[in-house]
Amino acid sequence: MVRMLIRDVLYFTNNEGSFELGYAIVQDGKFVTLKPGTCDSPVYEFDDVIWGKGMLILPGFINTHGHAAMSLLRGYADDLPLQTWLSDYIWPAEETLTANDIAVGSQLAMMEMLETGTTCFTDMYFHMEEVAQTVVNSGMRAVLGSALLSTLPDSDEKLQAAVAFVKDFQGAGQGRIVTTMAPHSPYTCSPEYMKKIMGQAHKLNVMVQIHLSETRSENKEIKQQYGVSPTIFLRNSGLLSQRVLVAHAIYLDDQDIDILAHHDVHVAHNPGSNLKLGSGVAPVISMMARKMHVGLGTDGASSNNKLDMYEEMRLVALLHKGALEYPTAISASEALYMATEGGANALFLPKGFGTLEIGAPADFQLLDVSGPRYQPADRLLSHVVYASHAGDVRRVFVAGKELYRNGEFLTIDKQRITFEVNQIVRKFPQNKCRS
Amino acid sequence: MVRMLIRDVLYFTNNEGSFELGYAIVQDGKFVTLKPGTCDSPVYEFDDVIWGKGMLILPGFINTHGHAAMSLLRGYADDLPLQTWLSDYIWPAEETLTANDIAVGSQLAMMEMLETGTTCFTDMYFHMEEVAQTVVNSGMRAVLGSALLSTLPDSDEKLQAAVAFVKDFQGAGQGRIVTTMAPHSPYTCSPEYMKKIMGQAHKLNVMVQIHLSETRSENKEIKQQYGVSPTIFLRNSGLLSQRVLVAHAIYLDDQDIDILAHHDVHVAHNPGSNLKLGSGVAPVISMMARKMHVGLGTDGASSNNKLDMYEEMRLVALLHKGALEYPTAISASEALYMATEGGANALFLPKGFGTLEIGAPADFQLLDVSGPRYQPADRLLSHVVYASHAGDVRRVFVAGKELYRNGEFLTIDKQRITFEVNQIVRKFPQNKCRS
Repeated sequence: MVRMLIRDVLYFTNNEGSFELGYAIVQDGKFVTLKPGTCDSPVYEFDDVIWGKGMLILPGFINTHGHAAMSLLRGYADDLPLQTWLSDYIWPAEETLTANDIAVGSQLAMMEMLETGTTCFTDMYFHMEEVAQTVVNSGMRAVLGSALLSTLPDSDEKLQAAVAFVKDFQGAGQGRIVTTMAPHSPYTCSPEYMKKIMGQAHKLNVMVQIHLSETRSENKEIKQQYGVSPTIFLRNSGLLSQRVLVAHAIYLDDQDIDILAHHDVHVAHNPGSNLKLGSGVAPVISMMARKMHVGLGTDGASSNNKLDMYEEMRLVALLHKGALEYPTAISASEALYMATEGGANALFLPKGFGTLEIGAPADFQLLDVSGPRYQPADRLLSHVVYASHAGDVRRVFVAGKELYRNGEFLTIDKQRITFEVNQIVRKFPQNKCRS
Repeated sequence: MVRMLIRDVLYFTNNEGSFELGYAIVQDGKFVTLKPGTCDSPVYEFDDVIWGKGMLILPGFINTHGHAAMSLLRGYADDLPLQTWLSDYIWPAEETLTANDIAVGSQLAMMEMLETGTTCFTDMYFHMEEVAQTVVNSGMRAVLGSALLSTLPDSDEKLQAAVAFVKDFQGAGQGRIVTTMAPHSPYTCSPEYMKKIMGQAHKLNVMVQIHLSETRSENKEIKQQYGVSPTIFLRNSGLLSQRVLVAHAIYLDDQDIDILAHHDVHVAHNPGSNLKLGSGVAPVISMMARKMHVGLGTDGASSNNKLDMYEEMRLVALLHKGALEYPTAISASEALYMATEGGANALFLPKGFGTLEIGAPADFQLLDVSGPRYQPADRLLSHVVYASHAGDVRRVFVAGKELYRNGEFLTIDKQRITFEVNQIVRKFPQNKCRS
């Protein structure tokens, strides 16, 4: 039994932003105590004692959509029209990526996510076995799926590999890995392929993640090809019969939103990526009005260009106010919820994930709130959402194990990964800064 | 003669994002050298030698619009409709503020600005003599004006005081302070009062700063009262005959933009504040198409809620892409320009401000670019705009003097100001966290 005490730490006592100074006890990777005041037990009874002075304990953030290895493509051909960006830059560069490259890129992404307070992330990409192995080694939590496209020549082999991946890695890393099926999108998966994927998803009883209605042109293309919206196309392909997480979900009409809500489809909202690519603003307020589960995601670093949930949390709270000219659209409390417990719900994780509740896995971060941006001191929840930045994250733990401390990565070799990243990118075609 | 060497530091060699490793020499507060390679002179010839390893030297950011002391109101009554927020919370709280309170609040703001890389800020508020004195003491650079409203009972005395302020403080702090006239807005200044203010502005030959078309309701109100748009109202009041900086400028039609461009009116764009208050998105792309000078501003911390130009720089680059569904709207290079040299131009500062050019004032920041978010390493400009956060700012200098270093404020007493801020806010009416 491993016991850790976090003393003299601030924590929120409710979702209205009330807070107390108190202590937490973590035992065998789970919270067993979170209370105001001082712990009565002598410190020598603990294996580790952390002094939280000046710090706020928060649940680790849960990133509900991304492509971790695309951090290799960060800043590669920014500020271009979407189609040029994809066909002339991203796809040719991606074609050069080996399984090892993807493992390296995923570790670069995990470092950035850890130091910005994220403890659990979602991934949809290629060579997922190697990605999963890096997650196991890093100590992070992740929801992983091999991207499946019927437009690829070996799509059936890829599906078999995706099934094998689920069988091999579901629950790996002492339960830190959750596997999914991941058809890429309505425009890259035929109805027949969708049906095959869903057959496997049902058999394996895993969640399904998919991109949906990210651009106007996607909607137009699906309409031309199938005569319906991408959402209805998914329903007709039998995809909505399983636990489903859709990413982006920007171009939805009211009927689409009703269909998604009716099937309890969950949503990964990616405000930063949607702005950067010029895609638009998702109708999140309409989804929330229908009590849909909406989490936040960064998307890949090639289209954001950061994997920082503090940024997405602030952006979701600001963007919808401005876009709708509606200053009460999303409150600070709702934004923090979306980045934590709401993200866990969006990913269909068990109750307790994304919280500091007794019995919840001890996935948490310590945020230094002693700086000027956290003053006046009585409005802490507002400051965490609107005024913080990730540079104030001091320590990050997953299942009670420390993975990041004051600039040091305790499970990832920053020097080696940084070196290898810069070796890998040399082979990208037309590699130059486009800013 | 004081000479400082900054060695082994990265710097951009052009605005396309090319960069070199080299060194800078600062002499008597100005840049005299910025070159690739290693300095030939022996280090004992310098009064100070800074090793820039892993760091990028950037011009200090220039914040073109704000109300520094409103950091006292940070998080005070967030997420409310604008009119409730103003009448029930902000104005009653502001009425309690003394000159000393405003000095304390301004110092809280300056700490946040310094640690996020800002070296020069713009302010429009009350008790400007006290604000100016704190700026002189802090070592920062600022463009200051006393807010003038004809709706206040003592508006003529206030105008006389504003004139006295200009006479007393123009060029104070070894030239670090620039004074302005600051009529608050079209809806709080009568045409007669505007004319009086402009008479003084011409006589004193100072810049004029004013809020313009921040909300739809302002436009409606001015239209009802004067039959024209706020922009035309300003022109008719003779305001556009002087060097003018307008803040916000959201609800402009093409004719308004043409008028502003014709009179070489400069703009302070506040993307974060405009979103937070649900005001909307300013037509910055149309302004840039007319070659107007547009800088970035944070506005006050009560409506942002941070004073972090890294945030505004990223937001301006993202927001207009998303709002216009136009992924090439504002490039990384343009965003960095707006936060630095473009901001200096918006404020009518002399050539060289906001740059690292030879002869320019040595107002600069050192950004630690050794972290994962700055990888792959060859796309540094993109990373600075899209992937950075202010937590990577290590050292900040104004006129060659260091004001911030690794969490320490060298000219402001953080402990005392933090204590006093929390004393002051106790008297605010209805004080509670509204998140």
